Amino acid sequence: MQINRERLAQDLETLRQMGLSDKGVTRLAFSKEDIAAREWLIGQMEAAGLDVEIDPAGNIHAMLLSSASDSAPKVACGSHIDTVRCGGHLDGPLGVLAGLEALRCIKESQVSLAHPVSVIAFSDEEGRFGGMLGSRAMAGLVELAEIHSAKDIDGVALTQCLEDAGVNPENLLNAKVSADDYKAFLELHIEQGPVLEQRAIPIGVVDGITGLFKWEITLQGQANHAGTTPMHMRRDAFQGLARFAADINDILAREGAENSKATIGKVSVWPGSPNVVPGACVFSLEVRDTDQKILEHLKSVFEKALKECAAAYGLEITIAQLSDIQATPCDADIVDTLVRTAKAQNLPHIVMPSGAAHDAQYMAHITKTAMIFVPSIGGVSHNPAENTAMDDIEKGANLLLHSLYALAA
Amino acid sequence: MQINRERLAQDLETLRQMGLSDKGVTRLAFSKEDIAAREWLIGQMEAAGLDVEIDPAGNIHAMLLSSASDSAPKVACGSHIDTVRCGGHLDGPLGVLAGLEALRCIKESQVSLAHPVSVIAFSDEEGRFGGMLGSRAMAGLVELAEIHSAKDIDGVALTQCLEDAGVNPENLLNAKVSADDYKAFLELHIEQGPVLEQRAIPIGVVDGITGLFKWEITLQGQANHAGTTPMHMRRDAFQGLARFAADINDILAREGAENSKATIGKVSVWPGSPNVVPGACVFSLEVRDTDQKILEHLKSVFEKALKECAAAYGLEITIAQLSDIQATPCDADIVDTLVRTAKAQNLPHIVMPSGAAHDAQYMAHITKTAMIFVPSIGGVSHNPAENTAMDDIEKGANLLLHSLYALAA
Repeated sequence: MQINRERLAQDLETLRQMGLSDKGVTRLAFSKEDIAAREWLIGQMEAAGLDVEIDPAGNIHAMLLSSASDSAPKVACGSHIDTVRCGGHLDGPLGVLAGLEALRCIKESQVSLAHPVSVIAFSDEEGRFGGMLGSRAMAGLVELAEIHSAKDIDGVALTQCLEDAGVNPENLLNAKVSADDYKAFLELHIEQGPVLEQRAIPIGVVDGITGLFKWEITLQGQANHAGTTPMHMRRDAFQGLARFAADINDILAREGAENSKATIGKVSVWPGSPNVVPGACVFSLEVRDTDQKILEHLKSVFEKALKECAAAYGLEITIAQLSDIQATPCDADIVDTLVRTAKAQNLPHIVMPSGAAHDAQYMAHITKTAMIFVPSIGGVSHNPAENTAMDDIEKGANLLLHSLYALAA
Repeated sequence: MQINRERLAQDLETLRQMGLSDKGVTRLAFSKEDIAAREWLIGQMEAAGLDVEIDPAGNIHAMLLSSASDSAPKVACGSHIDTVRCGGHLDGPLGVLAGLEALRCIKESQVSLAHPVSVIAFSDEEGRFGGMLGSRAMAGLVELAEIHSAKDIDGVALTQCLEDAGVNPENLLNAKVSADDYKAFLELHIEQGPVLEQRAIPIGVVDGITGLFKWEITLQGQANHAGTTPMHMRRDAFQGLARFAADINDILAREGAENSKATIGKVSVWPGSPNVVPGACVFSLEVRDTDQKILEHLKSVFEKALKECAAAYGLEITIAQLSDIQATPCDADIVDTLVRTAKAQNLPHIVMPSGAAHDAQYMAHITKTAMIFVPSIGGVSHNPAENTAMDDIEKGANLLLHSLYALAA
């Protein structure tokens, strides 16, 4: 069995055209472009002879059933087809369309299956209304209050969008599935980072999905005339931030692990005039790791370092936690299946973490889960330049195909 | 001879009311509030029996002449009466009104003078149109192109304002005076910093006015996903800035002098999202010293440090110089006169630098110049809370009075 490269390339290209402009692909969840893409996808799934169901969260499920496997737990794969604004054509669609292609191949090869195989296109992964809505709903992690309060950046309500898409908002909580319904879940996705490309390896087997905490930190000092305030009399809020920021790499090297990451991405300095000593700084600190214990350790380490910096520079500090997402280890058995299958298919691979969030991390609440990465050219994603060599796409899709079969046979 | 404390306090209060709102005093140069204040000031000068002249730059000169001293070089003092937006009532007015009060006292005491004594209210010190316009014009350091191109923050042209104030713009260059016209210049000013207050000393004799260079620095790295880009593969522009900023104090301690100051007051980080590794940073670096040689040394030291930081973090760097103002040493003879006079008057004093720019630094191009500082409460200036104890104002004004007399007698 091998996936049909041309058929997959054609599907990817057809979907790329939906919402394409000179600024990239924009197919926001439940937008008219997304709904058109969902209708096309359902048509492709039906044309492939799969059984299609839309669940109460709007997730599209296409199943390959056989009388032998009907009542057994499903072996599923999937991803999403919604995009960010002005994004690329592979973040999400690759996992859905390669899954569809894999099911076509399995069906065409007429092999017998002990488990049904399915591909899922999850709703609103990219977060028009909060992110990973469909997979969270399947895991039972969406609450009614969120459904009623969620609005997009333009103020459009999630409930309105769901109704327009033919989904009853009140019914969304019923998307929750039972652990008994699934045997395993796989997600093929582009890496969205530089590691595979730089190492010239076509396949990453993902053994853990990063957790993160995101803080907004305020350092309060005293704004003063830059000409008349001697250095030793200053309470310069930016100096406090600079000291902390310059220590981040050392802190990670000493207290973190191989996958630890810390980023200060957003900084504002008040009053922001070249001739005024900064009186206040507000900045973000986002820390990620695939190991929840390390993440908890880094939380206390960074809090201590921040408070020491503030004290050393005579600053008041407040730390507000904006996000706290648990790290999700992948299932060791499924990782092992992927590694063995890659070896059997002669596909060069490494085991690596996912630094980004994916539907797989909520499917991991339901069933044994792991992911497959393929290289992102230039490490670029959420960008019209997002791309992956077709050779790598083919390798990733074949690994998905053979792994699904290995789990379902 | 002693200044009349009540008369000076009354003048300061009257001028404070002009342009006062609940947000402080706003008397922008050549605004209707400034013009009303100028008219009031001219009236006070004439009422004191002084000869008033408006020069081609709109500077107001009030002179105490006597037949004996008519043709001798003048001993002058002065400052400005324009303010920043929402400023205080002493930055500028103190030097003008204390000078006026000193001239009144000298006139009333009927002492004989070998030199005429004058007080000058300089035009646009605060920089509605570029800063220290009147004193620069007297020093011959304004060019015609500047007069024609200068606009305020709202787009109002300097030429229009000058015409409205009865000043012919084309004539402004004729404000230039000859070195022969003056014997000495003194400026009494609030410190605008914390040093005198913290040391509980009422008088600072200023022996040098700071020079400065101001750079806008751009560090260019690569924006990347904060979750998928390992720490060692990043080109994080903010990390480069943080490393440099954290080293500033050490660089000054090693390479600068007692009066050296360096400030990063303005910072912007691009794209400025918590989950994106910063691809670029633009920030200001402003470095001050009273010694031009040290300033030149710091220029090369900071340029080297910046380039090393950029290289260490894989960043491209551009440095644009926005300002380059020469350090101005005060005249040793005049500093000595001030110190001797302070001692004679039993006024506790220290010799100190001025960290801020003043009209005195352009008068120093014309004649022997020094300054007198009095304490700023809380070190605060350019702020409605700007204030100085009346006891300190009185001491500063008396030192001005006796020093003017010592130089003119």
